[in-house]
Amino acid sequence: MFEVIGERINTSRKKVQAAVAERDNDYIIDDVKKQQEAGANFIDVNAGARIGHETEDMKWLIDTIQPMATAPLCLDSPDPAVLEMAFQMMEKTPMINSISLEKDRFDSMMPFLDGKECKIIALCMDDAGMPNSSDDIVKRAVKLVDELGKIKILPESVYIDPLVQPISTDNNKGVMVLDAVRDIKKEFPTVHITGGLSNISYGLPQRRIINRTFVSLMMDAGMDSAIIDPLDQAIMAAIQTADMLLGNDNFCGDFLKGVRAGTILS
Amino acid sequence: MFEVIGERINTSRKKVQAAVAERDNDYIIDDVKKQQEAGANFIDVNAGARIGHETEDMKWLIDTIQPMATAPLCLDSPDPAVLEMAFQMMEKTPMINSISLEKDRFDSMMPFLDGKECKIIALCMDDAGMPNSSDDIVKRAVKLVDELGKIKILPESVYIDPLVQPISTDNNKGVMVLDAVRDIKKEFPTVHITGGLSNISYGLPQRRIINRTFVSLMMDAGMDSAIIDPLDQAIMAAIQTADMLLGNDNFCGDFLKGVRAGTILS
Repeated sequence: MFEVIGERINTSRKKVQAAVAERDNDYIIDDVKKQQEAGANFIDVNAGARIGHETEDMKWLIDTIQPMATAPLCLDSPDPAVLEMAFQMMEKTPMINSISLEKDRFDSMMPFLDGKECKIIALCMDDAGMPNSSDDIVKRAVKLVDELGKIKILPESVYIDPLVQPISTDNNKGVMVLDAVRDIKKEFPTVHITGGLSNISYGLPQRRIINRTFVSLMMDAGMDSAIIDPLDQAIMAAIQTADMLLGNDNFCGDFLKGVRAGTILS
Repeated sequence: MFEVIGERINTSRKKVQAAVAERDNDYIIDDVKKQQEAGANFIDVNAGARIGHETEDMKWLIDTIQPMATAPLCLDSPDPAVLEMAFQMMEKTPMINSISLEKDRFDSMMPFLDGKECKIIALCMDDAGMPNSSDDIVKRAVKLVDELGKIKILPESVYIDPLVQPISTDNNKGVMVLDAVRDIKKEFPTVHITGGLSNISYGLPQRRIINRTFVSLMMDAGMDSAIIDPLDQAIMAAIQTADMLLGNDNFCGDFLKGVRAGTILS
């Protein structure tokens, strides 16, 4: 099953930041409801944008969202202290967003993750920066899965983000990440592949057709999760259609349901 | 380069049939011009629908189209006598549509093809009917390439049509043909893969989103040609976008040209 991580509850979004600053429960609850109705399987919660307020904002967001959410939360912060506080509040097994191979991030996240039951997004980023080749992505993914394995986080709990890069900078950037995803899935069939997608179209016009075409290619390669806005009907429709074409929708049932609901349009 | 075989000049289309019956050169010339402007690399010509008139209709169509067409023609008939007449009129190397492994078709087409310089569409169809598995498609493709090789038609002149089947009848039909295309391209890297696409969505609503999602998956698998209506902007835009994402569009030049021309829209 393809898993959608709904990205909307992020204080870098103006309206969310205002709602958080004003402690406007209704706005947040309404947004989470809409994400769930649109098919979000996880609700990402990021309270990083109001400098100096992350801990209290995160706590308030969880207090607001957790009682009404049916989907588990994805706790999104670079700060292990914030994550520890948030983790202790959890009623369902959360996803953590994220660890990477950057030394500072890695060294601070590993002790936090050690011994915890959670799913973890693992970025193929290290101190040299973004990966430069397909092999580079795969090597970093292998290292992340291996290191997480040492603290008993199994491959099926790891969500590798191969870091989609703009095709406008190099026409090989699409094939590079598609090949990498295929190789990672060959190496670790139970590992999940996730990430944002919209970076692929950075710098180009008509970005939506690029993003929705790319998601179907990524799904064919093995991507089984994405961090997106579930209220973006075009990308959700592309995901449901590709899921059907890739053999994951018995009797085209989910596709037909989407058509009847009016969310899948030609 | 992805090759579009423009399918519009077919007397099974009402307006084309009327134009052919009335010997309306202007209508036909205008249609071919539009297909070429939209990016057709071949112009399919099928005169089969007016029973008893195929030979004269095909001759008139070629006389009408050939002087103005910049794209080579794709001669589309099951009748080797019609194809022979048409072939003798050709000024550019044509494509022939089509041979298959059905005994009658195969036995009548091979003597026609023997010694001719042409490209040939080869359908993975035999007397048992449509293929039932990925292996079945691949076996038939191998047999077609081998048999055509015996009469000196090289793999790079063969356009295998793996016969896309409706996902509504079996949710494996998409993966079946995608896997087959990957295997055929592994076996014969220079063979082309072509075919119609719209069969995938037969029996389902909102067919256009299915067709355009499917074409990008097929291109990723190795399809490098399709028999389509080049005036269908949505499918052409999907092809150009996928071509870019698959690394075939330097500096995104063709994509940006399409955006400027208004043919690629989100």
